[in-house]
Amino acid sequence: MAKVTPWEVSGVVDYDKLIKEFGTQRIDGDMLKFFEKKAGKLHYMLKRNIFFSHRDLGQLMLDYGKGMPFALYTGRGPSGQTHLGNIIPWIFCKHLQDTFKSDFYFQITDDEKFLCKNDLSLEETNKLGYENALDLIALGFDHKKTHIFVDTDYIKTMYPIALKIAKRVTASQAKSVFGFGNSTNIGMYMWPALQAATCFLPSVLHNKPVRTLIPAAIDQDPYWRIARDVAPKLGFPKPAAIHNRFLPALTGPEGKMSTSVGSHATIFATDDEKTVQKKVNKYAFSGGQVTVEEHRKKGGNPDVDSSYQWLTFFEEDEKKLMKIYHDYKSGSLLSGELKMILIDKLNEFLKNHQKKRKLAEKKVDKFILKD
Amino acid sequence: MAKVTPWEVSGVVDYDKLIKEFGTQRIDGDMLKFFEKKAGKLHYMLKRNIFFSHRDLGQLMLDYGKGMPFALYTGRGPSGQTHLGNIIPWIFCKHLQDTFKSDFYFQITDDEKFLCKNDLSLEETNKLGYENALDLIALGFDHKKTHIFVDTDYIKTMYPIALKIAKRVTASQAKSVFGFGNSTNIGMYMWPALQAATCFLPSVLHNKPVRTLIPAAIDQDPYWRIARDVAPKLGFPKPAAIHNRFLPALTGPEGKMSTSVGSHATIFATDDEKTVQKKVNKYAFSGGQVTVEEHRKKGGNPDVDSSYQWLTFFEEDEKKLMKIYHDYKSGSLLSGELKMILIDKLNEFLKNHQKKRKLAEKKVDKFILKD
Repeated sequence: MAKVTPWEVSGVVDYDKLIKEFGTQRIDGDMLKFFEKKAGKLHYMLKRNIFFSHRDLGQLMLDYGKGMPFALYTGRGPSGQTHLGNIIPWIFCKHLQDTFKSDFYFQITDDEKFLCKNDLSLEETNKLGYENALDLIALGFDHKKTHIFVDTDYIKTMYPIALKIAKRVTASQAKSVFGFGNSTNIGMYMWPALQAATCFLPSVLHNKPVRTLIPAAIDQDPYWRIARDVAPKLGFPKPAAIHNRFLPALTGPEGKMSTSVGSHATIFATDDEKTVQKKVNKYAFSGGQVTVEEHRKKGGNPDVDSSYQWLTFFEEDEKKLMKIYHDYKSGSLLSGELKMILIDKLNEFLKNHQKKRKLAEKKVDKFILKD
Repeated sequence: MAKVTPWEVSGVVDYDKLIKEFGTQRIDGDMLKFFEKKAGKLHYMLKRNIFFSHRDLGQLMLDYGKGMPFALYTGRGPSGQTHLGNIIPWIFCKHLQDTFKSDFYFQITDDEKFLCKNDLSLEETNKLGYENALDLIALGFDHKKTHIFVDTDYIKTMYPIALKIAKRVTASQAKSVFGFGNSTNIGMYMWPALQAATCFLPSVLHNKPVRTLIPAAIDQDPYWRIARDVAPKLGFPKPAAIHNRFLPALTGPEGKMSTSVGSHATIFATDDEKTVQKKVNKYAFSGGQVTVEEHRKKGGNPDVDSSYQWLTFFEEDEKKLMKIYHDYKSGSLLSGELKMILIDKLNEFLKNHQKKRKLAEKKVDKFILKD
């Protein structure tokens, strides 16, 4: 059975069921048309249903049409180097910032990762946070509109907002929403208030109501439920959200790719070409047949093949992708060849990313909010 | 039945029972001798058993004898103006600072009071915190050795220490130590880590182990239990504590004087002469007889008389106090006269205090730690 909480995603994820369970809305045709009109074309992550669900996106867009700006918010829990699954919503944030000229707030939760990981010190999560920031900046965000902060270094601003939220959330709510128990540490109990606080940060900083739109994987939704519940009581607009599917684990269609599961099969933004090649060749789950002969005859199954699934996240070119799908399905494209296509695609992305990441080291200060 | 938690003190307090229940040590004759030798004379709050219990005071004094300094730590929850019950441990801190030349850290918990009081905003508790600081400064502390901070304004320094504590404390520990339940807000769950954090602040600021000694009313002891439990795991010295009895409620020998119970019978550091006179005359529980004739014959009972009990906290002169005790017990001193003695004593103290409090407004910045 699939289990989806902000700390654990396991089993085969049924996204239709999640929409029902979490009570979110499917992104429908009208919404897609609106986005296509605004941006000139439909972003491939919308077209491919990678972003598939939302909360209050319609209201946000209506308000935007009336001249009310909104701010983007997403974040990163620095438990290790950035991996490619982390980057998916960030790429989409870049698209949204370019399209709507929005301010973008990026929260790096060194406090949470320290609290929930036994083997990480606060000094380590803080340092990893600044490493992760480089990967965000490398994606080409505008420093004038992009505001990155690491929790412990921006706590003086965040703490009063978090306190106001925390006062409105009982332990039993936190237990039922996040699955906390008696052995959970007291820092974790308080912590959801910190993540929810960023929903209201733009309003606090601008001293007027500014709604936030949160692009993030759907496992983060419980935090926004807390924030949406508390918002009217504190006089802030309810945050809107847009949810993405997880980048599947390289090892197969179960769960999300996560450093916590095992870093051997995780592709990091800092991996070199050889490493990427090795990981894909060794770990990418194949939808192909056992022998070449059988594969040529019966064809492969792209719907479970990790390499193909990954290409739906990283290959923007629709025609190329369709050709790969049909070639693989027909058997003319072999599993090894499909893996090679993914390897080339990832290495092309990472080569460019790592060059920009190096340049980001020099301008990181322009992005960082500090107390 | 008496109930003693950091948020509630009710019923007649049995201090012997508290020593057993909390597992603290009685301050014995040897300890008193040590203090008398150090200070030249025994402070009246020790002599009168107002400070009656401790944790690790012996070890602290042994270490001090070997040249290891210690820091003092106490604090204030700013739920209203400072009242006279709050000031008791502060007077004793002044004595300890003068005697041992210790640095003194004073934590003002605007966050906690906001979290646990429904009718107070964070802006209000913060403002009250700075009001309360004036009352501390008015007692004559040395600004070079006295460091006052308001939690939300010093959180950048405190938060990392609090996180390290919070990671080591489970929800069930917080429940059993502080009586938290499912309806307690999540901010309160985390909050004990903030109060415990100050125990380790001197070590963090000096980057070497500095033990703290905490003079505070015994209801605050649960926080130090948490801190003492966690200290060795984080490599800090266990804090030592010295506990005082509560200044009894003016209305009688049950509970402690507290703004929460009702401010009408509470004497504040900012009350004027007339107000003090009115409050004592109207609310001070009398140990005297119903008629003057009966009082002259049978005498009064100073052990339950609030005015007399208060004088044991505020009248330093031992001879004067003994005379009042015997005169009241013999019946030669009437209840109204005893009240008048207390009124004069308090007004003498407050007149001087308020003058110094006014002067404190100009030098408060010298005392405040900010991030």
